[in-house]
Amino acid sequence: MATDSPKAPAPRAYEAVLNSIEEELRSGEIKLGDQLPGERALAERHGLSRASVRDAIRILDVLGVVRTSTGSGPNAGAVVISRPAAGIAAALRLHVATRQLSVAEIVQTRIMLETGAAEAAVIDPDDDAAREVLGEAAELLARMDDPALNRLEFHALDARFHVLLSSLAGNAVVEAMMESLRLAISDYVAGSVRSDEAWEPLARVLRGHHHAILDAVAAGEGAKASRLLREHIEWFYAETSASGAE
Amino acid sequence: MATDSPKAPAPRAYEAVLNSIEEELRSGEIKLGDQLPGERALAERHGLSRASVRDAIRILDVLGVVRTSTGSGPNAGAVVISRPAAGIAAALRLHVATRQLSVAEIVQTRIMLETGAAEAAVIDPDDDAAREVLGEAAELLARMDDPALNRLEFHALDARFHVLLSSLAGNAVVEAMMESLRLAISDYVAGSVRSDEAWEPLARVLRGHHHAILDAVAAGEGAKASRLLREHIEWFYAETSASGAE
Repeated sequence: MATDSPKAPAPRAYEAVLNSIEEELRSGEIKLGDQLPGERALAERHGLSRASVRDAIRILDVLGVVRTSTGSGPNAGAVVISRPAAGIAAALRLHVATRQLSVAEIVQTRIMLETGAAEAAVIDPDDDAAREVLGEAAELLARMDDPALNRLEFHALDARFHVLLSSLAGNAVVEAMMESLRLAISDYVAGSVRSDEAWEPLARVLRGHHHAILDAVAAGEGAKASRLLREHIEWFYAETSASGAE
Repeated sequence: MATDSPKAPAPRAYEAVLNSIEEELRSGEIKLGDQLPGERALAERHGLSRASVRDAIRILDVLGVVRTSTGSGPNAGAVVISRPAAGIAAALRLHVATRQLSVAEIVQTRIMLETGAAEAAVIDPDDDAAREVLGEAAELLARMDDPALNRLEFHALDARFHVLLSSLAGNAVVEAMMESLRLAISDYVAGSVRSDEAWEPLARVLRGHHHAILDAVAAGEGAKASRLLREHIEWFYAETSASGAE
């Protein structure tokens, strides 16, 4: 059915298993929460070695498509989950490591997605889900306003704040990509500020930005929120890449 | 060095190999084009079974980080490459199959990235690389103007045109994500138009859009190119999801 890509290398044995599981997911034969058949059953069905089946399951695990419990024996099937961010992040992080993808490129991509999400966000004050997200975002900001909060905790809450805002667009692909970009550069962000003395003035500016962004989002001012987000991310990146180069 | 994510499940044996290869890529100890040590050497270095090392290599292969040649024996090391789009696409496609990610979400994400890339594109008419990309894009459009071109060829050239334009932003993360989104929905696009009769009028409109977009890009009118791209993608998606529902 599917046409072969001309660039694809020779197919591997495990690809047959991946393709058939993808097909069964598409057709709805396998659903979220289902247990895959055991290794032996899959191997028999595809006429493959159990080692090839194991390869396929490991790959699905890394891509965030199934969860396997270690030590559950070769016949305990993997359970279908869906953690797209995990799979995309695994790919992104390794390619950042090969230096084919740079932090600057990831930051620019993050800006495109976050500003796009802010513009696409629909804030209906009568919608309980949106109100809940806004309330949660306000709570995160309140916690970040505490001057006693340490830097790593601030970064973690900061990241949650951004992912939460982008969730208002209701687009799981954007959320997964945002989360994966964040994971891909979280070491960079945490390592970009050397000392608490350097951090304090930055944190003050970030707090101000965050409140202004949330106010714009809550008021349904998508274009303004988008502009503030762009300025905020560009500002932080410029500040930290300068201090990182010292 | 790296902090553990609180959400991470119990670590698997192969993760030690992945982490150490990621570390060596980051430090520059392993570079693009290098051959990884053989299975036996990696197994000894990490105190792991060769099966676990093999798992890790397979995963790196799927993520587009190494290329292994089938039948080259267990001691022939994998070669480090970098095909980020392949790895991200593998994750995206499977999650689309689990129905946790929808085609509509992918289309919206594509719009964010393509319009962002159009706005970020820098077109310097004295820059040979940019001139070459524009020339190549014009050539793709000339080929798509041929009314004898069949639908699948049109879709393939169309996809190349869009990825090529987004490459003008010079952002490899955006390019990789664009390519992966395209791969994730290429079956959908190819299957969305049922007959040649239905296709012909669509193709005429698409040709007009494409020329107008390329003209705006070539003139350095990023905002206009961005608006035309959004309208173009939204139009095609609306047309084809309506006809697909018949």
